[in-house]
Amino acid sequence: MKSDLDNLMQARDLDALIVFGNAEHNPPMYYFTGGGHVSHATIIKKRGEEPIYFHADMERDEAAKSGLKRIPYTKYDFDELYKKANKDSLLTSALRYELMFKDAGVTSGRVGVYGTYDIGLVFGMLTQLQKLSPQLEFVGEPREDSIFMRAMETKDDAEVERIRKMGKITTGVVEKIREYLTSRDVRADEVLLKEDGTPLTVGDVHSKIRLWVSEQGAELPSGFIFAIGRDAGVPHSAGTPSDLMRLGQTIVFDIYPAEAGGGYYYDFTRTWSLGYATPEAQELYDQVKEIFDQLMDNFDLNAAFKDYNKMTCEYFESKGHQSPLNTKSPVEGYVHSLGHGVGLNIHERPFSGLTASDDQRLAPGVVITSEPGLYYPEKGMGFRIEDTLWVRADGVMEKLAEYPYDFVLPMKKWKK
Amino acid sequence: MKSDLDNLMQARDLDALIVFGNAEHNPPMYYFTGGGHVSHATIIKKRGEEPIYFHADMERDEAAKSGLKRIPYTKYDFDELYKKANKDSLLTSALRYELMFKDAGVTSGRVGVYGTYDIGLVFGMLTQLQKLSPQLEFVGEPREDSIFMRAMETKDDAEVERIRKMGKITTGVVEKIREYLTSRDVRADEVLLKEDGTPLTVGDVHSKIRLWVSEQGAELPSGFIFAIGRDAGVPHSAGTPSDLMRLGQTIVFDIYPAEAGGGYYYDFTRTWSLGYATPEAQELYDQVKEIFDQLMDNFDLNAAFKDYNKMTCEYFESKGHQSPLNTKSPVEGYVHSLGHGVGLNIHERPFSGLTASDDQRLAPGVVITSEPGLYYPEKGMGFRIEDTLWVRADGVMEKLAEYPYDFVLPMKKWKK
Repeated sequence: MKSDLDNLMQARDLDALIVFGNAEHNPPMYYFTGGGHVSHATIIKKRGEEPIYFHADMERDEAAKSGLKRIPYTKYDFDELYKKANKDSLLTSALRYELMFKDAGVTSGRVGVYGTYDIGLVFGMLTQLQKLSPQLEFVGEPREDSIFMRAMETKDDAEVERIRKMGKITTGVVEKIREYLTSRDVRADEVLLKEDGTPLTVGDVHSKIRLWVSEQGAELPSGFIFAIGRDAGVPHSAGTPSDLMRLGQTIVFDIYPAEAGGGYYYDFTRTWSLGYATPEAQELYDQVKEIFDQLMDNFDLNAAFKDYNKMTCEYFESKGHQSPLNTKSPVEGYVHSLGHGVGLNIHERPFSGLTASDDQRLAPGVVITSEPGLYYPEKGMGFRIEDTLWVRADGVMEKLAEYPYDFVLPMKKWKK
Repeated sequence: MKSDLDNLMQARDLDALIVFGNAEHNPPMYYFTGGGHVSHATIIKKRGEEPIYFHADMERDEAAKSGLKRIPYTKYDFDELYKKANKDSLLTSALRYELMFKDAGVTSGRVGVYGTYDIGLVFGMLTQLQKLSPQLEFVGEPREDSIFMRAMETKDDAEVERIRKMGKITTGVVEKIREYLTSRDVRADEVLLKEDGTPLTVGDVHSKIRLWVSEQGAELPSGFIFAIGRDAGVPHSAGTPSDLMRLGQTIVFDIYPAEAGGGYYYDFTRTWSLGYATPEAQELYDQVKEIFDQLMDNFDLNAAFKDYNKMTCEYFESKGHQSPLNTKSPVEGYVHSLGHGVGLNIHERPFSGLTASDDQRLAPGVVITSEPGLYYPEKGMGFRIEDTLWVRADGVMEKLAEYPYDFVLPMKKWKK
């Protein structure tokens, strides 16, 4: 939680932190500011003190909504710094940051650097600043294990409620798509038809997903997956817009909307087969559902997340599939890891890869996905079931949105 | 244009470049890849050679759509590197990048670093890589003057057509909003009403804008501005959702959608007053329109962009307003610069600030905004008119979308 940041800074011997970038779509900045229309902003926080929010003067109203202590960049005389820097714009910027650090009371020590922003600008500016302020040492951290990822790993109740609300929106959109698909007319060759009698494409469905998510005031900042047939067998294929929607093929629908402005995500997947399923597809789906249910029954408070990934590998291998446990980077069978944390990042701690650190656990306040899957691109099929789960302090793993697990969706106007 | 990149690299003595980040919403990466659902990717390009696209194996299908030469990260044995790095994940990453540079034929020289990505990760990794490969020198560039911003400054015809198409979508959405607003019922106290008889808020209008942009398959990755009254007087206030929509107040509607997936932007602003305008507002609007028209008549091929900003300052000062020409960071009057380039970045070269470099010119292929404005937050009003213009090789400044400049919008069901 956010209140852990000072302790995390101390544990890593960081005297201060700096976050670069926009207030939106930038998790460490959003964590402090709560979003808003503020671009090219900076946060500097000295350990044990409140963060200071530096922003363009034109964006003062938006910045004020954060409730943070603020300093507009105009406090620092650009013309004077530009002259002092001999019109070198990176050096001008470094001179300004030198003053900003002073205003934040940071004059020496180790400074962690964070945020999603222009790499070239920050790298160039920090290189200059390092020469101006040799008493400051700038420190990069691995993205997946930064102090922010550590703090964000556990959520407070208000954060969980925001994720739950996104779950409601997500499953609402999924239900509208299910209703739309199963209401279609079907051509003799098992292709679904639109209202105007022309074939329904994957691209048409993509448009409806975008529209219905937007109608709910949510966003799809990391895209989404609605893929059929072979594409469903490639975990990160988003689907081919020109593909026709057909009966009896597996559809992987993985949707992860976020609150508008780069807020909290929800992550959800169902696999469908319209009208009927081939026996082979039904068998593979049943296996995915079986391990999904076993996992739900077995998740224990404070257990290591990766242990459940190992359990999933073992289950699938026992059914004759490849998995990362005994095959290096498989492209068939169970090819990814079991899940990940969800919050302001679509993928965050805890991670469940077989090499994940032991301390990534189902601790109280953690929100994770459980998403076992099977992939057979050459057979033209793929399967994944995913819910987002909240690890409650009482040990209950609570699904943050309920939704049925039907695989075969009966078509209202078609019978075999 | 993209074909200028090798020459730009040579001019800055760069032997190679590296771009970090996702394929979407990341202009330098999009410039090479054309977008797609590929995250945490890398491009390395040696000067004079084709770029190489490094990506996660799971995203191979999406990466293949780029048509670029590709190498999956799985080529580099993670377990072996992780062991060699003593489980230090930044060092593991640096060891992998060392191999990637070798595969791209880059063994020494200056390497420019680009992309929007996690600052901490890249800064930490490059710090380690610099120690492993002292014969490579990593170079940051100012964002607004990087080789990418230079190359992107001029567009080829295909890029202009994509911007033009976004212009059509943008003005289509603006027209729908205008039609919606002017069709409202109006309460005795001049507040607009929704279909259900309750007051129409700025937030309601924001929702419609989001929905109608999404319906067109476009995105609002940098937000938008629809602000009334005092908020219209603060250039970057996005508008307060709870504000009621009222007659006779200035509305600044600045909308800059992009192609879905982080493609090309359009940038457009109109200022409206519903039903009627106060005489003071009408007078200020007329001034903004007058200088807007004068600029359109005066733009010359290859002239410096900032000269027109100076002309705008002089015009507004002659009317008694403050401007950056003689007032430092004014908050009333003409408070920003005239415009900016538009492309894969909402703000790119050429820039028009009074201190902009002389070489930011209206060269053939440049696409700019012209957006003079006046701001009086204390008077509760603001004004801006903006079109996106293409500098054609024949010297014509072509508006990429036509739309009327009416200030007072008559209400269909209300008369004074």
